Amino acid sequence: MATHDSPNINETLLQKILESVDGLKKDQELLASKFDLYQAQNNEELKKLQEKLDPATHTSKTTIITSKVVENEIQPKAGPVPSISSTGEPIYSDRVILTTYPDQFGIKPISLKWGELEPITRGPIVASRHPKSIKIRNAIGAYGGSYCVYRALAVAMRALDPNHQPDFKNTEPSVKIGPHPQWGSPDKIVSLDPFGHLTTTCFANQISQGIDIRPTIAITKAHMKLAEIENHVKEGKLKVDGKVVLDGGELNVVKAAVEPVWFLPGVAARFGIDEGLLRRALFEDTGGMYPELITRPDLKVFLPPIGGLSVYIFGNPKNVSDPSKKLTVRVHDECNGSDVFGSDICTCRPYLIFGMEECLKEAQNGGSGVIVYFRKEGRALGEVTKYLVYNARKRSAEGDTADNYFLRTEIVAGVKDMRFQALMPDVLHWLGITKIDRMMSMSNMKYEAIVGSGIAIHERVPIPDELIPSDSRGGRVPSKEDLSKVKGREWDDIQH
Amino acid sequence: MATHDSPNINETLLQKILESVDGLKKDQELLASKFDLYQAQNNEELKKLQEKLDPATHTSKTTIITSKVVENEIQPKAGPVPSISSTGEPIYSDRVILTTYPDQFGIKPISLKWGELEPITRGPIVASRHPKSIKIRNAIGAYGGSYCVYRALAVAMRALDPNHQPDFKNTEPSVKIGPHPQWGSPDKIVSLDPFGHLTTTCFANQISQGIDIRPTIAITKAHMKLAEIENHVKEGKLKVDGKVVLDGGELNVVKAAVEPVWFLPGVAARFGIDEGLLRRALFEDTGGMYPELITRPDLKVFLPPIGGLSVYIFGNPKNVSDPSKKLTVRVHDECNGSDVFGSDICTCRPYLIFGMEECLKEAQNGGSGVIVYFRKEGRALGEVTKYLVYNARKRSAEGDTADNYFLRTEIVAGVKDMRFQALMPDVLHWLGITKIDRMMSMSNMKYEAIVGSGIAIHERVPIPDELIPSDSRGGRVPSKEDLSKVKGREWDDIQH
Repeated sequence: MATHDSPNINETLLQKILESVDGLKKDQELLASKFDLYQAQNNEELKKLQEKLDPATHTSKTTIITSKVVENEIQPKAGPVPSISSTGEPIYSDRVILTTYPDQFGIKPISLKWGELEPITRGPIVASRHPKSIKIRNAIGAYGGSYCVYRALAVAMRALDPNHQPDFKNTEPSVKIGPHPQWGSPDKIVSLDPFGHLTTTCFANQISQGIDIRPTIAITKAHMKLAEIENHVKEGKLKVDGKVVLDGGELNVVKAAVEPVWFLPGVAARFGIDEGLLRRALFEDTGGMYPELITRPDLKVFLPPIGGLSVYIFGNPKNVSDPSKKLTVRVHDECNGSDVFGSDICTCRPYLIFGMEECLKEAQNGGSGVIVYFRKEGRALGEVTKYLVYNARKRSAEGDTADNYFLRTEIVAGVKDMRFQALMPDVLHWLGITKIDRMMSMSNMKYEAIVGSGIAIHERVPIPDELIPSDSRGGRVPSKEDLSKVKGREWDDIQH
Repeated sequence: MATHDSPNINETLLQKILESVDGLKKDQELLASKFDLYQAQNNEELKKLQEKLDPATHTSKTTIITSKVVENEIQPKAGPVPSISSTGEPIYSDRVILTTYPDQFGIKPISLKWGELEPITRGPIVASRHPKSIKIRNAIGAYGGSYCVYRALAVAMRALDPNHQPDFKNTEPSVKIGPHPQWGSPDKIVSLDPFGHLTTTCFANQISQGIDIRPTIAITKAHMKLAEIENHVKEGKLKVDGKVVLDGGELNVVKAAVEPVWFLPGVAARFGIDEGLLRRALFEDTGGMYPELITRPDLKVFLPPIGGLSVYIFGNPKNVSDPSKKLTVRVHDECNGSDVFGSDICTCRPYLIFGMEECLKEAQNGGSGVIVYFRKEGRALGEVTKYLVYNARKRSAEGDTADNYFLRTEIVAGVKDMRFQALMPDVLHWLGITKIDRMMSMSNMKYEAIVGSGIAIHERVPIPDELIPSDSRGGRVPSKEDLSKVKGREWDDIQH
């Protein structure tokens, strides 16, 4: 046969070899994963048997871990193959990594030294799964807090390229905040990134290399128009100075938006619990959110999908951290029903506006004022629980008192308040605040958290009686006497 | 030698390689079968050992061997063993289930027929990992949206018993809403649970059995006091009728808080994508949130950790779904900077207040008014992105125009708007709305979503010129001409 010198024969042979090698490869992968799984199971069972025979020997985990990588890469099951979009182009790889492990191939988190005052030494927060960032990312979670869910929708709808690289030109802060010495203390700030607004300048080098690093803080200037303020300017209760309060009562303000960035060891320490328990709770009691909280103990930073906070600065921002200037502060927890819709069951908006006016006056007198607005609706129980409690307290035999409000909340939610002010002072340290002359809140929880964090509070200012709306459905309103006895604090703790 | 070019030699070599690879394959097949045999024998040995040590639990152990449970159970690694709290009492079991699988031992999701009008046939939404609920739960995620993160903190701090059973006595809705025929259509409502406010009555039986089922909707009555409304009452622009508008301008309202409950096949259909892609995106682009989105295709419902919505009803709630009564509606997307703080860069709060006043007038004229407030800050991009864009647009050479706002947003965020109004009409169908007489928004996105969902809109009412605040930093404000040409819509689409 002369056919042997035809290249077709070689091609046929090469084809056969290729098929055989491919088959071999598949078999080998199967056998390997079978072995990993079996080894893991066997280890698990042996460990249990060992525990029974000798409870002391309770170690060997590594072999189980190595099997995870295989076991956690699965083919998608739901619907058509998700990696193929309606247009036929792939968005995602065929493999789904359910979770990652520190010893996984190629995983090298970028160095992060929380509490370092020098940003380059501290290192950037990288939470992105962008191709150039996923293996070096040093944070669990996603940028944008809970809005990452909408980003996911945008990607699924192909409205957003999953690998979109933001152009941060001209987005830099419109005023300078920090650096302050507090930024250099690993325990003063544990729930936000003090360099969050300087990301694009401090880490420009890494960003230019294609690493997806995003600001978690943004600072801008704005003007505000509030009907209550305009009324008081008309009534002469607030004067126009042309700098802070403009003609007609419009206000000059510098505002900052801050997304939560949690340094888990610091957060655990703040709550007096161990980091492992914190991680476990954040995984279990969110319905199994972010398994990396368990499998990536090497990642110390978590960007939780919760609301952040907004800072409103009245007067010269430099004055805020200047101990020689007077400072008025209102720390406000979101109450949408009152803040936006003026519900008269609580004093949230009235206290917010009163606090704002006192901030404006402080600024007009050469000091400054700061309002911090925390996104923690209904004592961080959410509005649904809040309304359920409203109904229960109105219908309860004991009547609609503040104490009863606590009681009903505890019966429905299991806890009277989940705001946990322990993390709240971080933003004050970020602003470089060392003392507060006038604190526009009577909340003991807030007072103790702030003073406990090393910031002195010289005076606490209650909301004036006349600003407290009557709960028109038989609600208890603190009387002058209550407030003079500071029983108002109980009431105050409910919401303000 | 040049003989290596000769096809003959190549052919011989290739033949040898093929033989060798084929041999390898045979050897491996032999090895694999040996492994299988050994595994089977070893499992038998383990079973016998377990039976000797602990006959009672022998069966559950063997099922573990054959199920996926083992490879997703690992020993916690971070810090001290998390299952032991500071007090020494265990909160969590030693085992961590990173994710679950449909074929897992004991998993039997409670039946759920989305779109059934009869609640018992439809079945409850069970998202809880409470011991009595975890194996029968039929939803991914957690109750309370993103507030589940705070719940986790409360549990870790031992302020909240992880197995707390709420007592819902007296929390029932203060007014009746539904059932409406729309509730019986599986595609009219896909992003909330139409029975969310009836949970405690419809599913009292299951709750009494200890299944942790929670309301995702709460309805209550309230009074509101807004400075703008009070001013207009003083100025005689709004009359006091004693029912809707009370003395001094206080308002009577019925309000509902609604948490998101997504029926994933319906949400995917609404966006015109396949369910698998939606699940994959919700997992990948949230930084690996909820692996069960991938591993539990049998669970069709997802409670995402995002903000929900609030409904404000003015006038008789019965009128809302009555086609013979006039209805005014404002669908408002959260803009905290304007809604609470009166930022003058957009018309959010002015349009909200204007819409509210038109709702009040409609109610006073025998119809009713509905305001829906969606928690989608900054076009669902979050406030940080919003402020970054503010800075970029103010500093851009093109000037601060609406078009430039879009452009800057797209450059920074990769998409100009992530609100995706496709799910928005669900709440209108929940309210039984079949037509809207006056729509207090000029947004094309909102208009098309509502009309596309089968609700007629008879009139769209723009915000009056005089209510549009001037952007005091060179912002473009739509002129009368703009609005008459309905160019105002572009502007409107930015925020309203």
